[in-house]
Amino acid sequence: MNPQINSLCDAAWAAFPVYQAKTNAERAAFLDEIANQIELLGDELLQTASAETNLPLPRLTGERARTCGQFRMFANLIRAEGWNAETIDAADPTRTPPKPHLRRYLVPVGPVAVFGASNFPLAYSVPGGDTASALAASCPVVVKAHPAHPKTSELCGAAITRAVEACEMPSGTFALVHGGFEEGQDLVQHPHIRAVGFTGSHSGGRALFDLASRRERPIPVYAEMGSVNPVFLFPDALTSRTAELAKGYAGSLTLGVGQFCTNPGILVAVASAALDQFLLSLVTELESAPAATMLHNGIADRYVQDTAEFASHAHLETLLQSDAAGKPALFGTTAAQFLAHPEVRQEVFGPSAVVVKCDSVHEFEAIADILEGQLTASIHFDKNEETLALGLLPTLTRIAGRIVANGWPTGVEVSPAMTHGGPYPASTDTRTTSVGTHAIDRFLRPVTLQGMPD
Amino acid sequence: MNPQINSLCDAAWAAFPVYQAKTNAERAAFLDEIANQIELLGDELLQTASAETNLPLPRLTGERARTCGQFRMFANLIRAEGWNAETIDAADPTRTPPKPHLRRYLVPVGPVAVFGASNFPLAYSVPGGDTASALAASCPVVVKAHPAHPKTSELCGAAITRAVEACEMPSGTFALVHGGFEEGQDLVQHPHIRAVGFTGSHSGGRALFDLASRRERPIPVYAEMGSVNPVFLFPDALTSRTAELAKGYAGSLTLGVGQFCTNPGILVAVASAALDQFLLSLVTELESAPAATMLHNGIADRYVQDTAEFASHAHLETLLQSDAAGKPALFGTTAAQFLAHPEVRQEVFGPSAVVVKCDSVHEFEAIADILEGQLTASIHFDKNEETLALGLLPTLTRIAGRIVANGWPTGVEVSPAMTHGGPYPASTDTRTTSVGTHAIDRFLRPVTLQGMPD
Repeated sequence: MNPQINSLCDAAWAAFPVYQAKTNAERAAFLDEIANQIELLGDELLQTASAETNLPLPRLTGERARTCGQFRMFANLIRAEGWNAETIDAADPTRTPPKPHLRRYLVPVGPVAVFGASNFPLAYSVPGGDTASALAASCPVVVKAHPAHPKTSELCGAAITRAVEACEMPSGTFALVHGGFEEGQDLVQHPHIRAVGFTGSHSGGRALFDLASRRERPIPVYAEMGSVNPVFLFPDALTSRTAELAKGYAGSLTLGVGQFCTNPGILVAVASAALDQFLLSLVTELESAPAATMLHNGIADRYVQDTAEFASHAHLETLLQSDAAGKPALFGTTAAQFLAHPEVRQEVFGPSAVVVKCDSVHEFEAIADILEGQLTASIHFDKNEETLALGLLPTLTRIAGRIVANGWPTGVEVSPAMTHGGPYPASTDTRTTSVGTHAIDRFLRPVTLQGMPD
Repeated sequence: MNPQINSLCDAAWAAFPVYQAKTNAERAAFLDEIANQIELLGDELLQTASAETNLPLPRLTGERARTCGQFRMFANLIRAEGWNAETIDAADPTRTPPKPHLRRYLVPVGPVAVFGASNFPLAYSVPGGDTASALAASCPVVVKAHPAHPKTSELCGAAITRAVEACEMPSGTFALVHGGFEEGQDLVQHPHIRAVGFTGSHSGGRALFDLASRRERPIPVYAEMGSVNPVFLFPDALTSRTAELAKGYAGSLTLGVGQFCTNPGILVAVASAALDQFLLSLVTELESAPAATMLHNGIADRYVQDTAEFASHAHLETLLQSDAAGKPALFGTTAAQFLAHPEVRQEVFGPSAVVVKCDSVHEFEAIADILEGQLTASIHFDKNEETLALGLLPTLTRIAGRIVANGWPTGVEVSPAMTHGGPYPASTDTRTTSVGTHAIDRFLRPVTLQGMPD
């Protein structure tokens, strides 16, 4: 056990009852102060993040607003009545046996370990949604910084620590550690850690899940691990909006150099003249996408390797060859081949997609049904195709956490009705979301007081 | 893979979309019909259960009412608006980018495997709370009968199957299998099973949790595994209500021959003349407890072995020697010894308790703090001790799922505000309850529809 991690987890445990005993108003003020402190970092934060991640300043400016907005959203949530789901069953002394008074409410699970993501250095990293929702739930947080953006993480960690001090929270309320797999392993296995939030690859998330499940006292792991996010284009929509759909799809596929967990990597449509025209437009759009650098060399190398492998796959036709890391790639296949060959259904992290050409819309359901758990699934349809398209919903709601009608999956609203999660392997806990107010549920558990004085 | 289990799980999977597509009213009528069919089994059910479990008829009559009440409670729950937690975020087309319409609601996770308990042949077994809440959530159920009461299980299984037929539900909606560990293993590992409900021993629950976590696609296991359920007696309450508390405690400890997961196996009090008097009364009460046979030979043999081990333990004083399976046993120890020796904190399944004699109430917190996760903790206090007693709540809510004031933990209300669960090892998923309306939450997951027509 790394002694620094051991002492930070002990400090988080010591802080837990003190932090939990703060009022909702005090914790809300603390969350607001974190948002203020992050904003006070000013341009230095944006420039540092841009230098470490290759993400452009406008994108990072937006991500900072989202990040601070999340802290303020959770501050407002815990200021309002009802966030802890209090339920009362009245006593009934006339019943035999007498019915006792019961009060159920939610309490924090304990210190939470958070693993920052590489693709959102702010909103899913040190000051991300996992940290904000855990702190809102009254859980101290220990974050392991993603090694791809250590300076950004340090700046954000220092801002949160200043908020801890300004709001007189116990010093163990928040801690930041750097390190690799061994440090992560120590953190997830520490007896004082009671839950884990993670955003990243399947191999990383599954490794943490396995460690947490094998503990003497198992703890939940909320790992959001991405997916291929299928898009189904119904024929009339494809015919009536060919150019618009090509432009929209190209935009969603290349947004953030395709490095989003909601990146739409599979497109399903019926072979037709409209599809041919759509693909011509799509290739043109993708070819003209501005050159962009990926998050780090590991991701770039992997992208080049994965797209090369797809290009040489016997059951894929190359529609657009990627000639460099970050350059879009497009492949084609048939429904029969897609169903028969699991390799072509794998996620490629980056702006690469597989177009599945069907003989008819009646093949859509089998394609949806064979897919693994997804964060999202999208359907594009014209008004007259509504019944047909909505007929896919039972299957799509079984495989995905969010179903988008006539829109694109990238761009995740931070709001009460959002679900950012889905059946495994999209996430390790399909009953939860990592975005929106319900993200707090992950770090709460119910307690019932029976016959207790007010 | 056992071919019968394989075919039942396939049938459950085939039934899933059909059962899910039924209306709430249809599913509610089905749950009500299950209750009717169980009642129609009449005395044969009670006599069969009594012969198989040694439980007396009045207790089983009460348990049948509870069992049927659970089905009717879930029927009423899903008839009412709001059970699927629908949340809407309105669209805002004036925002940049436009905010989409979002609708979040809960959907079933898929077929559920239920493992019946030995100590409640009805309410936590084939027609128990796990089955009722999973069916209410629109999940097909495959139950593995507990081998200790196969005929009772068959009767109940046939009653549920009659309800399936009468209500024209798909035949795979419910299935019952018999078997041992291997059949259980096959069931938990079947790819079409998406969650597990279990009530029983720690070794059994943990084995299922480990299997489920190691699947290619891990699934949640809701194992409720019992605990020692500490009771804290504050000094003035002990003095003012000595005889009443002794009688109450003896009643709770011996209820159902101590074979409840909420059985209060640890009693904590300050050494005093009142405690001496309490223990005298308690021993008298326990000695006069009517002779009763335990559920089955395995449990009886284990009880004799565990109480003999406690009787020979260097750090325990025998206050009442158990001379047979099912006969109460009482042991004494000091706070210092209790804190130093984990063995004396172990659960003995049956009417056996350890009394921890403290020097002062200030030792109560350390005792609570060292305990593992508990289903319940109870505190008895007089009005003037309220501040002192409620001072224990932060620690007790951290270790237990339900805190009982001036009452006993046995007797679990089936109602919205109940929590029957707790931190590990009381249960494998501390965020849930296996009793009351919230038990349905275990088998639901959120889905969000974005921009979808009504």
